[in-house]
Amino acid sequence: MSLLEKINSPADLKKLDESLLPGLAEEIRELIINTVADTGGHLAPNLGVVELSIALHRVFSCPRDKIIWDVGHQSYIHKILTERRAEFSSLRQYKGLCGFPLRSESVYDAFGTGHASTSISAALGMAVARDLKKEHFDIVAVIGDGSFTGGMSFEALNNAGDLQKKMLVVLNDNEMSIAKNVGALSEYLYRMRTAPTYSRIKRDIDSVLKSIPSIGDQVQKTVERVKNSVKFLLVPGMLFEELGFSYIGPVDGHNMKHMLEVFELARQSDRPTVVHVMTRKGKGYAPAEKKAASFHGVGPFAVETGDKLKTGKYPTYSEVFGQAMVELGKKDERIVAITAAMPDGTGLSAFAKTFPERFFDVGIAEQHAVTMAAGMACEGIKPVVGIYSTFSQRAYDQILHDVCLQKLPVVLALDRSGLVGDDGATHHGVFGYSFLRSMPNITLFAPKDENELYQMLQTALQHNSPTAIFYPRSEGVGVEIYKDQPVMEIGKAEVLSFGDSVAIWAVGGMVEQAKKVCRQLEERGVNSTLVNARFIKPLDENLLLEHANSFKHIITMEENVLAGGFGSSVLEKLDQKDLLGTTSVLTLGLPDEFVPHGNRELLLADLGLDVDGMTERIMTFCQKT
Amino acid sequence: MSLLEKINSPADLKKLDESLLPGLAEEIRELIINTVADTGGHLAPNLGVVELSIALHRVFSCPRDKIIWDVGHQSYIHKILTERRAEFSSLRQYKGLCGFPLRSESVYDAFGTGHASTSISAALGMAVARDLKKEHFDIVAVIGDGSFTGGMSFEALNNAGDLQKKMLVVLNDNEMSIAKNVGALSEYLYRMRTAPTYSRIKRDIDSVLKSIPSIGDQVQKTVERVKNSVKFLLVPGMLFEELGFSYIGPVDGHNMKHMLEVFELARQSDRPTVVHVMTRKGKGYAPAEKKAASFHGVGPFAVETGDKLKTGKYPTYSEVFGQAMVELGKKDERIVAITAAMPDGTGLSAFAKTFPERFFDVGIAEQHAVTMAAGMACEGIKPVVGIYSTFSQRAYDQILHDVCLQKLPVVLALDRSGLVGDDGATHHGVFGYSFLRSMPNITLFAPKDENELYQMLQTALQHNSPTAIFYPRSEGVGVEIYKDQPVMEIGKAEVLSFGDSVAIWAVGGMVEQAKKVCRQLEERGVNSTLVNARFIKPLDENLLLEHANSFKHIITMEENVLAGGFGSSVLEKLDQKDLLGTTSVLTLGLPDEFVPHGNRELLLADLGLDVDGMTERIMTFCQKT
Repeated sequence: MSLLEKINSPADLKKLDESLLPGLAEEIRELIINTVADTGGHLAPNLGVVELSIALHRVFSCPRDKIIWDVGHQSYIHKILTERRAEFSSLRQYKGLCGFPLRSESVYDAFGTGHASTSISAALGMAVARDLKKEHFDIVAVIGDGSFTGGMSFEALNNAGDLQKKMLVVLNDNEMSIAKNVGALSEYLYRMRTAPTYSRIKRDIDSVLKSIPSIGDQVQKTVERVKNSVKFLLVPGMLFEELGFSYIGPVDGHNMKHMLEVFELARQSDRPTVVHVMTRKGKGYAPAEKKAASFHGVGPFAVETGDKLKTGKYPTYSEVFGQAMVELGKKDERIVAITAAMPDGTGLSAFAKTFPERFFDVGIAEQHAVTMAAGMACEGIKPVVGIYSTFSQRAYDQILHDVCLQKLPVVLALDRSGLVGDDGATHHGVFGYSFLRSMPNITLFAPKDENELYQMLQTALQHNSPTAIFYPRSEGVGVEIYKDQPVMEIGKAEVLSFGDSVAIWAVGGMVEQAKKVCRQLEERGVNSTLVNARFIKPLDENLLLEHANSFKHIITMEENVLAGGFGSSVLEKLDQKDLLGTTSVLTLGLPDEFVPHGNRELLLADLGLDVDGMTERIMTFCQKT
Repeated sequence: MSLLEKINSPADLKKLDESLLPGLAEEIRELIINTVADTGGHLAPNLGVVELSIALHRVFSCPRDKIIWDVGHQSYIHKILTERRAEFSSLRQYKGLCGFPLRSESVYDAFGTGHASTSISAALGMAVARDLKKEHFDIVAVIGDGSFTGGMSFEALNNAGDLQKKMLVVLNDNEMSIAKNVGALSEYLYRMRTAPTYSRIKRDIDSVLKSIPSIGDQVQKTVERVKNSVKFLLVPGMLFEELGFSYIGPVDGHNMKHMLEVFELARQSDRPTVVHVMTRKGKGYAPAEKKAASFHGVGPFAVETGDKLKTGKYPTYSEVFGQAMVELGKKDERIVAITAAMPDGTGLSAFAKTFPERFFDVGIAEQHAVTMAAGMACEGIKPVVGIYSTFSQRAYDQILHDVCLQKLPVVLALDRSGLVGDDGATHHGVFGYSFLRSMPNITLFAPKDENELYQMLQTALQHNSPTAIFYPRSEGVGVEIYKDQPVMEIGKAEVLSFGDSVAIWAVGGMVEQAKKVCRQLEERGVNSTLVNARFIKPLDENLLLEHANSFKHIITMEENVLAGGFGSSVLEKLDQKDLLGTTSVLTLGLPDEFVPHGNRELLLADLGLDVDGMTERIMTFCQKT
């Protein structure tokens, strides 16, 4: 019987002899590698926190104590240790375990995460609640160094330092350049903490500081502060201490013994405390250690080699976008690219290689990314912000207040628009049409295929006001890309096929689905006019009014929530023109609920948005009205 | 002839003898006090930066050089000095000068602001653009210590420190507790910078540091870092230096000579530099110096006494909300209040006084405020986040991802919903219905009067899922407030009057307008059924369907953009029920454009949303269809 088979809960883990923990860690690594090789998922981040997760669950007592996993894609070990080992093979699958912490999935998941930098805020909220209720438990936020660049983390640290509630922040530091030095630097500094050297230096410096002339109370306080600062000179925790945290670290995140000691020490602190842990992404799996970035989020792969099992037939939209940026960038040196920590995911790494001086990775900082772009646009540069649709939500106000209000020509390239599949509710890009179309001055594009993405990017870069282009997380449909296409007419839809029964207005990724629906409808005697809307805003008013006057039935199709979405804008336009009595509109899109994770086709089928489902709904609609 | 009369542009300012600058500052103070006493505006922040603004325009050369005023309410002196003195009396008035920097108003306004913490991002974007274009000019972001708590500032500092572009950040530090010490501490530290003491201490500490054992290259680097840190021991600029900025300061922001020197020094720096300036809000006007918070934003007042000239007839919605929080807080100790730096504006200062341990001012940090509330709600506390509608835009993703997705009972009290008047485009709260109603799981309330606000707050606090209450920036309508009202039925509208010609569905602050419209319609032979919608989400479906079946005309009225707003949701609902052929809908609300500043009544009239305008549009609508 393996060690892991004995561990169903944190209570079981506490019973295990400490000497067996490294062996347990190896078993967990094996389980994760084998499972993710099969299901896909976030491999490297989890392999980096195996010892860290075990140590936390050994020292703290969940679910009484709360662990909040920032971003949450590194919560696999946590899930395995908290009564979910048996279901682990269903990871990220339709109706299986979620790839992120989920309150509705387990009482051990104290706070749902997915987007970065929320954990310290949530932990502080829980700490405040605990103290108001006069209860006693521990709260731990585990946050990577990447998430620290998100300003929200800073807002929370600042407030937590002020409130001085008992809470623990574990800084999971896996920054490559630092990771390389774990052996030397971390071990050295770990010993330094307890060595007599520290005390001696502090004493020496204290005496130097006495030479500062003291002028009254205020200066005395400054000198006190200076003295206190001395202890942070020797460790990289100055920033945290500045903000009111106790700092412990750095500690080697793969040294179980040290981590258990340090977490136990931190557990006894009665104020906000940071433990700085150095980990290595992909630890224990050679291909992932070698290429941590490629193994951050992966599809199924061969365990022996690390090679991808599936490779796409066609380039993805991200790749097409990346390539288009390189080519357009060659023609116009004013074009620059900005990403918020997603150079690979957005496809912009190609641009980064070709034009390093015109490429800006600002870290996880979507707010800053957008306003920085606004600043560039003021000075005649043409910034393209490559960002996932779901993360653009972080920059709502910057898009509205800094870009749209000033009508600045910033291009937002919104990748992963629509359902993203396995990553689930936190990552679906299904609110963008609604929240962006209510902003004045912005033009919203959505291509039906990769060639149109290219053309829309060209067009947006020529357009002298704010633009956003929505495209899906998938490979293209396999069409050829024509460079040097004419600029697209703004607000002009494209008619793909003619029929006299119904008009179908599909947008973005839904156009491909709509083509199939049209074929099914045709078999059932319904001939459709199919429109590729191209623009969510402005709508092609002329064509729409023409259709309203000539069709009794108009159908809209979008992979966005219906509330305030594309179909809603069609209704608004027809209402303004008093045409809603003339034609009937069926809006197909996502309902007013959060959609879980799983295969995109299965999710769409559940929502009645697969080809069969939509065909059926259109048939019913045509018969009813 | 006064000094000020000679100054029309920064060029004129540069010609003035330096000895005359303090006199000029006095004249500017007088102009501002007298103007704001008349127009209302942000008094204390501007009085604090008179010398700072003069010094900046003396050292830098606008519009070639760019000054970005964070938040921007402190830009009055800048406006006076940059060719807008003559129009200054029209400040914040309809079609007059904007109270914030506005690119469309002047070439000297390099970047429009209104919401906090955007300036460093914009400045960095401009610096990048400048260097790409190989141009030469200076870029200055002027940002208050309050805006620094906004995480976006940190994101930008972090990135700016990394990119090492030439740019200047002026930290305008007017934190009250610090301001008191300007005389002693700042003067002391200013001298310290140039005094031999600094060098001697640095030398002494260097020799102490030599005693640290060196183990290999990595440790050597640490020691280097430690040595570099020493110079920050003596000044409060450690955080900035950590992030890669040069730090100069603090300097007394009312000492013209020192500031000119320091800005000249900073201008010569070729890397990111922070100048830390200590200023006093309200400086030079005794009533404002005494009560800077009350004189932050003011209505017209008597110059001699500082007394308000207008006092409202009825309590404002903010005051009613604040009082309701105190009373409901007494009955349920789980209720807590959170504000992002607006204890007075939101009316929550009353709650803060009564329940200091249950009140949380997190600083300008809306993102953190909302997710902290989510953390509290996880643990059974009932958080109410008091926030201006326009600033809630900063927390879009936190509301969606942390609150709604997890269905946590957080109450958002959205003050200043609708047009806010004089503050203008950056502050109107006119997107909230659109962006919040597309989020699943949330319930959206809007009261017709202050009594209903009280009842809605009670109801929201009983409701076990996310809620938001929108209420206007104005005084209540003067109704009595009944405590201990029964909890409101969720999604139930209220019929205020019965008539058989048309049904009018008004929401929130528009209900009062709608009543007047109904009276005018009646005079013209149109009898209306008037509905107070109460809920933007969920809609009262039963009543709406009943009306669709019995009225040929339904009118919606909202003070929100029509795109995706309340009227749009009415259209969606009627479309789902196939009732758009049965009834016609006229949606009245804001068009797809940004609305400028000015008196709210004048703005509404311009938009055809005053009582006369709406009556006319309804008459036309009824005759047409």
